[in-house]
Amino acid sequence: MRVLLTGAGGFLGSGLAERLARGMPSLSSLTLTDRQSSFSGKEIAGAEVKPGDLTDTVFLDELFEPGFDLVFHLASLPGGQAEGEPERGRRINLATPLELAWRTAARRPGARFVFASSIAVYGEIAAEIVSESTPAAPGLSYGAHKLMTEIFLSDLARRRDLSAVSLRFPALVARPPTESGHGSAFMSQMFHKIRAGEEFASPVPASARCWWMSRSAAIDALLHAAFLPADAPTMLLAPALSATMAEMAEAIETVTGPKSSIRWGEDARLTRIFGSMPQIDVSLAHSLGFAGDGDLETLARAALSGA
Amino acid sequence: MRVLLTGAGGFLGSGLAERLARGMPSLSSLTLTDRQSSFSGKEIAGAEVKPGDLTDTVFLDELFEPGFDLVFHLASLPGGQAEGEPERGRRINLATPLELAWRTAARRPGARFVFASSIAVYGEIAAEIVSESTPAAPGLSYGAHKLMTEIFLSDLARRRDLSAVSLRFPALVARPPTESGHGSAFMSQMFHKIRAGEEFASPVPASARCWWMSRSAAIDALLHAAFLPADAPTMLLAPALSATMAEMAEAIETVTGPKSSIRWGEDARLTRIFGSMPQIDVSLAHSLGFAGDGDLETLARAALSGA
Repeated sequence: MRVLLTGAGGFLGSGLAERLARGMPSLSSLTLTDRQSSFSGKEIAGAEVKPGDLTDTVFLDELFEPGFDLVFHLASLPGGQAEGEPERGRRINLATPLELAWRTAARRPGARFVFASSIAVYGEIAAEIVSESTPAAPGLSYGAHKLMTEIFLSDLARRRDLSAVSLRFPALVARPPTESGHGSAFMSQMFHKIRAGEEFASPVPASARCWWMSRSAAIDALLHAAFLPADAPTMLLAPALSATMAEMAEAIETVTGPKSSIRWGEDARLTRIFGSMPQIDVSLAHSLGFAGDGDLETLARAALSGA
Repeated sequence: MRVLLTGAGGFLGSGLAERLARGMPSLSSLTLTDRQSSFSGKEIAGAEVKPGDLTDTVFLDELFEPGFDLVFHLASLPGGQAEGEPERGRRINLATPLELAWRTAARRPGARFVFASSIAVYGEIAAEIVSESTPAAPGLSYGAHKLMTEIFLSDLARRRDLSAVSLRFPALVARPPTESGHGSAFMSQMFHKIRAGEEFASPVPASARCWWMSRSAAIDALLHAAFLPADAPTMLLAPALSATMAEMAEAIETVTGPKSSIRWGEDARLTRIFGSMPQIDVSLAHSLGFAGDGDLETLARAALSGA
């Protein structure tokens, strides 16, 4: 089996790359791609690293020469950045996934295509509890492009050109402290600050409700999606947890010991975008065998371990 | 004001082209485009005809040289054809509208872009009454691509790059008898057969419920959409009428005199796709001043007049 992973140098992608390389049966091949600058230079045994620009047709021609049976498409331009650079956003977050899906299907009809979508498809949510059937109304181009890609993939799956699964992920924790470009960076920051015993100045109030998922649970979800039956739903909410900042902080302190102090803020914009989430209904994912972090303490432990 | 109309040689487009040319203030320019073969050769006074292939970048570069303040994008590949020629479908029904919208915005930020979308975005409908908020679940690539384009346009409108309006149209009546390629051709056929006093063999039962709209009401709707306020909704159901085949037949006979006989059929596929429509709630369009045909007899009269 031939496997392709895009965004392989990123936070989620690098973790998935290691897990894939570790668990690969010998008859498989694993190709990792990302921009040259995203690869740390760390070798992954058994994987072929092909750095390049996915918006470059010549590179794609070469990359797709043999075709793939399984593609994980994780590469994207973060929402804030895409909003500021709309042309790049359109190319990376819309044209690229459509093109990759099309090429995957053309080379190997019926191949599995796992797409890292985002809860950004929902935009601001009025519903009290969110599931796959909650209407999507993206508030940023990032979410609009993810939603368009989901629709495209569902249509290819209907035609049996591809066997596609889109997983809607929340912000993952805990991103490295150096990665402060995401609007949701404060969510990861809380883990690092509490562990270090430093004061954490939260931009949002203690009551702000966010959706949480550890990187390791996200990797589990992607791997599980890769081997769902072909007739499974083509779009799923990743099994995230819904909890307030205060609840998450308490769970982190259960793991690290309570040695930090938190000042709660009132940033209206961040609270609106990341801290006003409702409850989440991930029963569909659970019914299909997706596990998720289970509870906040397990999530905190996974997030702090860096796994 | 510079105006562009794509699909200008088609059933809806040719009617809109004439109405635009007739009603144009002298300071405006009107550019008509379609494939060379779609133009009948009939001159339209005051309009510039630029035949070409909208999927050809060189042609687009030339077409968009000066930019447009108002674009009507009507060109598309019919659903059945797109299903059989997926690569052409993707280029014409997805890549082209996205590219045209992007170029329109790049040349004239804030320009009005009116997009002929389709009720095909809904797929099979479980709801008892359909409005703009009914979930879309396209059953064909045609509908998936229309839906993706709507999302793209809404996002450009949110960014104020474009002032976009997508109108979801049903099958229009009465298409010329020669145009029998559409799955919904039987809906138009009924008008021609009853007028001619010939027997009409309907593939669907008398009780089959369809959505109806005359070409002239569709042209009115496109023109009205062109001058909606900039803060109007970016997606609207065109003000169609919901009626059974028998009800429509009766209205046609009121206009033509009852001189035809109808044999009702049982084609399950056509009944499912075109003849199982629920009621339609077009109150949003009405509240924004869209008129529609009003009633079945007026619709029959308009459809039979060929206007």
